[in-house]
Amino acid sequence: MIQTKGYAAQSPEVDLAPWSFERREVGAHDVQIEIKFCGVCHSDLHQIKNDWFPGIFPMVPGHEIVGRIVKVGDHVKNFKEGELAGVGCMVDSCQVCENCQDDLEQYCLEGNTQTYNNKDRQGVPTYGGYSNTIVVREEFVLHVSEKLDLAATAPLLCAGITTYSPLRHWKVGKGHKLAVVGLGGLGHMAVKFGVAFGAEVTVLSTSASKEQAAKELGAHHFVVTKDEAQVNSVKGTFDFILDTVSADHDFNMYMSLLKTDGTLIGVGVPNQYAVHPFALIGGRKTMAGSSIGGIKETQEMLDFCAEHNIVSDIELIDIKDITTAYDRMQKGDVRYRFVIDIATL
Amino acid sequence: MIQTKGYAAQSPEVDLAPWSFERREVGAHDVQIEIKFCGVCHSDLHQIKNDWFPGIFPMVPGHEIVGRIVKVGDHVKNFKEGELAGVGCMVDSCQVCENCQDDLEQYCLEGNTQTYNNKDRQGVPTYGGYSNTIVVREEFVLHVSEKLDLAATAPLLCAGITTYSPLRHWKVGKGHKLAVVGLGGLGHMAVKFGVAFGAEVTVLSTSASKEQAAKELGAHHFVVTKDEAQVNSVKGTFDFILDTVSADHDFNMYMSLLKTDGTLIGVGVPNQYAVHPFALIGGRKTMAGSSIGGIKETQEMLDFCAEHNIVSDIELIDIKDITTAYDRMQKGDVRYRFVIDIATL
Repeated sequence: MIQTKGYAAQSPEVDLAPWSFERREVGAHDVQIEIKFCGVCHSDLHQIKNDWFPGIFPMVPGHEIVGRIVKVGDHVKNFKEGELAGVGCMVDSCQVCENCQDDLEQYCLEGNTQTYNNKDRQGVPTYGGYSNTIVVREEFVLHVSEKLDLAATAPLLCAGITTYSPLRHWKVGKGHKLAVVGLGGLGHMAVKFGVAFGAEVTVLSTSASKEQAAKELGAHHFVVTKDEAQVNSVKGTFDFILDTVSADHDFNMYMSLLKTDGTLIGVGVPNQYAVHPFALIGGRKTMAGSSIGGIKETQEMLDFCAEHNIVSDIELIDIKDITTAYDRMQKGDVRYRFVIDIATL
Repeated sequence: MIQTKGYAAQSPEVDLAPWSFERREVGAHDVQIEIKFCGVCHSDLHQIKNDWFPGIFPMVPGHEIVGRIVKVGDHVKNFKEGELAGVGCMVDSCQVCENCQDDLEQYCLEGNTQTYNNKDRQGVPTYGGYSNTIVVREEFVLHVSEKLDLAATAPLLCAGITTYSPLRHWKVGKGHKLAVVGLGGLGHMAVKFGVAFGAEVTVLSTSASKEQAAKELGAHHFVVTKDEAQVNSVKGTFDFILDTVSADHDFNMYMSLLKTDGTLIGVGVPNQYAVHPFALIGGRKTMAGSSIGGIKETQEMLDFCAEHNIVSDIELIDIKDITTAYDRMQKGDVRYRFVIDIATL
């Protein structure tokens, strides 16, 4: 077994703290990565607090993992020791169901194996990237370019693919007006991708203070959703809205901003997605959801980012400051993603 | 002005009763129809009771109108005296906006003019088909085949197009598994169209007693949604669900029956369409709405029905029995649409 150092929550009631645990030996099809950086996703906090469902404790969060390969199994074909690599939200799936065969492992019909707060297919708890090393079967390991800033690449593994995938699936691009709701870890990536794909991008925000930041990210327009005149000026104008907000909010207002046949794509997790029937029926509108992306598409996204020099805007932190970072994240006080420097572990 | 006899609600508190009113003279572009039959839509009752919004009273409901043309204006090109004709939910729209130009008058950006409980573009209240005659501009008049049973054709003008249009828009057909929720006026038409388009059709119903009726309509399968084992047997199996129910119901359960990338299309008007985020996100699923259909598509639907001998299953009533019919409709005690014989007026 591989002795591993990490930060874990022993229960939902306590803060993260150092914890040592074991990972499996590197199997024939496994890749072992020495973790360099791990992004801090809002879902890390939701999961250690049991916000969504009862968690598996001790819990080592982290599913935006980048590092360098230190060992590969005998049968590993696509990775070599010394290369950069990444791991996202999944470390396994059944590999045989219709969805897995269609490169949609995130929707594996048997359920994918999440990188942490899950049990692997042998029943062993999975532990995430707030740790110094991880062992993952090669099908779930991503190639990471040496060209990009490595720390700023980490959030691409969740925040990146979660926004890239729906924009690609719904073929958002030139000629489309795209609105992005929520300018956090996911939203700021949605702006970058939307702009890169050629869409006309508007950031919808409750806070007028974010306008400059939105424009710096490349957004073409900015609308303060608390300003009725500004909202009215964009009614019925968007082809797509990518809604990244996990706090409860009024979907009816956002639906009214869509054109006929427009689509709101939700990637956030508020308590519910609820609209008045006429908000959909009144314009043949669509409310859809999307979860991360498949492994093939995640690699495509990383390659696209390397080609177009796209990374996350991050604030690098010492792992000892993780609880402070969570507090600030809850207040929206981060531009736009905390990333843990695992060297501080 | 044209003296017209009808049945009207004088206020939300009273039953429908005979009422005489005037319609405009037949203008150069107008068609006057002597109404033979008018379908009874659940929305008639909702509107006279102000369930959705404050209505315009006196209110003459009815938007599933068929009859014979008795007069046409000098510039009318496509209709002749003596022909059968129909009128649906709309009698006008701006005709110039993007949606009207795209044959989507139901989504007219200025708002279409509803057949009743609305004001026309000159500000005059519109009165519906519970009456002996109607005057409509020719762009909103439909050709009705002599081949079909005329009374049973009336409901096609609302229940028919409301289900035909989304099935066509989402290209539901061969190779698709379609579930229909609610076996009423809309649902029974959805079954007929789904079968005609080549889909494998399942009726989802709370009531086991409807199985035989569903099969008689052509449904291939029937699932009692109160039976957990039956529900579990169809989890994740449908490409589309056409949900016609206006009573509040649990959308989460229905979403769980969709495949990955599946779509629930709502045409009913419950208080809200609400789901847990994971019900959408967990399989890139879509919840959409659709409202009737454009005029061109309504004609296409009527022509399709004539070609394939599709009409509504109806119970013909005397207009004096309208209040009883409403009571029975509220209990779901009708297979599947009441149609008023206007000769009884």
